[in-house]
Amino acid sequence: MDSLYHRKSIRKYKDTPISNKDLESILEAAVRASNTGNMQLYSIVVTTDAGIKQQLCEQAHFNQSMVAKAPVVLTFCADLHRFTQWCSMRNAEPGFDNFLSFFTATIDAVIAAQTACVAAESLGLGICYLGTTNYNAQNIIDILQLPPLVIPVTTVVVGYPDESPDVTHRLPMEAVVHYQTYTMPNNQTIEQWYTPKEQLEESVRFVAENNVQNLAQVFTQKRYTTQNNKVFSQKLLEVLYKQLCMNNQ
Amino acid sequence: MDSLYHRKSIRKYKDTPISNKDLESILEAAVRASNTGNMQLYSIVVTTDAGIKQQLCEQAHFNQSMVAKAPVVLTFCADLHRFTQWCSMRNAEPGFDNFLSFFTATIDAVIAAQTACVAAESLGLGICYLGTTNYNAQNIIDILQLPPLVIPVTTVVVGYPDESPDVTHRLPMEAVVHYQTYTMPNNQTIEQWYTPKEQLEESVRFVAENNVQNLAQVFTQKRYTTQNNKVFSQKLLEVLYKQLCMNNQ
Repeated sequence: MDSLYHRKSIRKYKDTPISNKDLESILEAAVRASNTGNMQLYSIVVTTDAGIKQQLCEQAHFNQSMVAKAPVVLTFCADLHRFTQWCSMRNAEPGFDNFLSFFTATIDAVIAAQTACVAAESLGLGICYLGTTNYNAQNIIDILQLPPLVIPVTTVVVGYPDESPDVTHRLPMEAVVHYQTYTMPNNQTIEQWYTPKEQLEESVRFVAENNVQNLAQVFTQKRYTTQNNKVFSQKLLEVLYKQLCMNNQ
Repeated sequence: MDSLYHRKSIRKYKDTPISNKDLESILEAAVRASNTGNMQLYSIVVTTDAGIKQQLCEQAHFNQSMVAKAPVVLTFCADLHRFTQWCSMRNAEPGFDNFLSFFTATIDAVIAAQTACVAAESLGLGICYLGTTNYNAQNIIDILQLPPLVIPVTTVVVGYPDESPDVTHRLPMEAVVHYQTYTMPNNQTIEQWYTPKEQLEESVRFVAENNVQNLAQVFTQKRYTTQNNKVFSQKLLEVLYKQLCMNNQ
């Protein structure tokens, strides 16, 4: 439990491999987690092969070196294929080629992923999620040979930490937690919540390095621009439609 | 760690309330979990008010009594509103009204949800996820007063268990875990994986109760029909487009 409060994402890993016993413990914890209707609409692809990790690193994850360096890369996929295949064999009409089923399977895949992360961290391992999974889903589909109805949702690298970063800043709890119903913040409240974040030493450095006026502009002009969000949004939707064989939903 | 392997979802709860200290521990663990770019694109709505729980139960969660009965209902939302408001106040053009940003926020919301669940279970509490969140998203938006750019992703009820169900069956690990790349199962493999599930006492009972030929038909003819999946899929997409102010993405 204590490890939940002091955790931090790890981006530098030692070469030390993860024992089969530990890897199995992590995967078993993931599979015991909640899932919708016990249909288990997800798959976990475990990649330890150096060549495939290198491909994932270069072609899917924008060359983030931890993908090649970490001993284990876990790709959590929404998997509507397995259940559909079983239904087809049982004279049961499968209707899972739609957005709702994909979204359900996505939630299940992430529940499994986060359970794997908690298990890994409780064993002294470090983890990092890769948001790039949703930018380059087609490349991952090609590299990992995912069939129709299987879509990568998130990727986690796992290994022994070779760095010890500080615990990351978070907004105050009241910014994220609402009681009974949603409370709309006014501008003064936003000021109170975000000013300490803007004043962090690393925030000041990001602003200087990126030659912008403030921290918000680091996000909107450099990291997550409207233009890129639109392009990658369209790309992700195209992969979904293709992989789910959906036409116009 | 051990609790990860012996957990089970709880659908019957005692009246015993959860102490503020325990609730805060659960929420703090959730907020410490990984999130994309430390943007914290999610919110957690904590509902303990009996009247609002009753509304959620009746109007959003198909009258599943645990929603009214459990002391705490947590609705985890993708929240692109707060970050957008901050950006707007800082002369930074926010571009988060798109599918990619929503999907990113969804993943972060589920990571937070599952971390809350692990924390709750480690404190001796029981939890259950409600997939109905995605069926009746608009009703939840109305009841919890979620503004544009905020969308409910998943709901978790939390409380002290008033039942002690057996650990649920799972497919063998090799059905879910693939090494290096995805391995397509052949029909014989599917038989091996699913036959033990079909032979469970509860599976046999489900088939008899629903008057169908086999377990797969329980899923496709009763629980998750093609027709319902299509209707609720369309409904969910409409909520997304409306709430994200997206036109044609």
